[in-house]
Amino acid sequence: MKTFRKELWFNVPSRRGFINITSQIQNCISESKVQEGLVLVNAMHITASVFINDDESGLHHDYDIWLEKIAPHEPVSGYRHNVGEDNADAHMKRQIMGREVVVAITQGELDFGTWEQIFYGEFDGKRKKRVLVKIIGE
Amino acid sequence: MKTFRKELWFNVPSRRGFINITSQIQNCISESKVQEGLVLVNAMHITASVFINDDESGLHHDYDIWLEKIAPHEPVSGYRHNVGEDNADAHMKRQIMGREVVVAITQGELDFGTWEQIFYGEFDGKRKKRVLVKIIGE
Amino acid sequence: MKTFRKELWFNVPSRRGFINITSQIQNCISESKVQEGLVLVNAMHITASVFINDDESGLHHDYDIWLEKIAPHEPVSGYRHNVGEDNADAHMKRQIMGREVVVAITQGELDFGTWEQIFYGEFDGKRKKRVLVKIIGE
Repeated sequence: MKTFRKELWFNVPSRRGFINITSQIQNCISESKVQEGLVLVNAMHITASVFINDDESGLHHDYDIWLEKIAPHEPVSGYRHNVGEDNADAHMKRQIMGREVVVAITQGELDFGTWEQIFYGEFDGKRKKRVLVKIIGE
Repeated sequence: MKTFRKELWFNVPSRRGFINITSQIQNCISESKVQEGLVLVNAMHITASVFINDDESGLHHDYDIWLEKIAPHEPVSGYRHNVGEDNADAHMKRQIMGREVVVAITQGELDFGTWEQIFYGEFDGKRKKRVLVKIIGE
Repeated sequence: MKTFRKELWFNVPSRRGFINITSQIQNCISESKVQEGLVLVNAMHITASVFINDDESGLHHDYDIWLEKIAPHEPVSGYRHNVGEDNADAHMKRQIMGREVVVAITQGELDFGTWEQIFYGEFDGKRKKRVLVKIIGE
């Protein structure tokens, strides 16, 4: 059995944003030499997500509006968590979008449907944050 | 280490619907000969889900009403994604219900609690779509 | 390849509650002797969650209020599932918070960011319920 581990760093300049990290994950798989197995990709921060969906800017705009409706940032004082913090909403948004994805590796490639792409979802940005990539297989 | 891969195809005749796929996943495990390991089951489409919950028609009705309230299909024009598309709501519903499940395999069986069942959740149906089953173990 | 399996039991005395189970999961990893691999932690019940977020009581209060707003317990008669049951809301809350987490094991430890902690989330308590821990690796 082979295993591989790498941290990826991201710095989203605004509070919220989505970054397509698919090619970076494929590069990790190539580096790992794993042909058949699983790759786990997870946010190492609890106000960020890793998720799989469409790379379409209209949809990303829709997600932002939708998440803000389900878990609004304002009023900041509406959350008990926000004592010396202002990111309670980000902890909610991250639960909707998810912490992690697990993806099959087949013949050394991400085993994906036509439109599947992996995103880092930032809900409390303007600072450096990490994603963990862990691969097991052979 | 053994690995196994199979695609399952589904065609839900309505826009939305839930299909119990538990026995098909168990069949994959049996075919794989894996006794101890993990099975990943994921939608290969970004407007569908794979999730684990109860096989109870009242609950499925409740889910449909609830998801439609959180992410309504209409008005279609309320989403920027819907330019030549009408399925933005399906991309939201799928995030709530999830893309994938990872289930333990123990002694060659799905290692499940009493009421756990695996479902394919369709939010933009009336066409053939795929689920990926990937098994690793020994 | 090594594999390991253990069930953890919890009895939350109220309808809803969150329990930090991180140290119990780390103990399972130590017991398994796995140095590099993956650990799956999932609720074996369909009205409970396992999720990763912050161990902060204000946030947990916020989650409870937020989930109750998205999927209210009352009126119980508002859900078709609630025929001889009163827990339909718990099935919804569990989908938001998730059934399972998959965590990397590196050098025999949970490979976590600074604030990541694993929680059992109960949405229909006052009885004994189980969490499954399955580890694969070497």
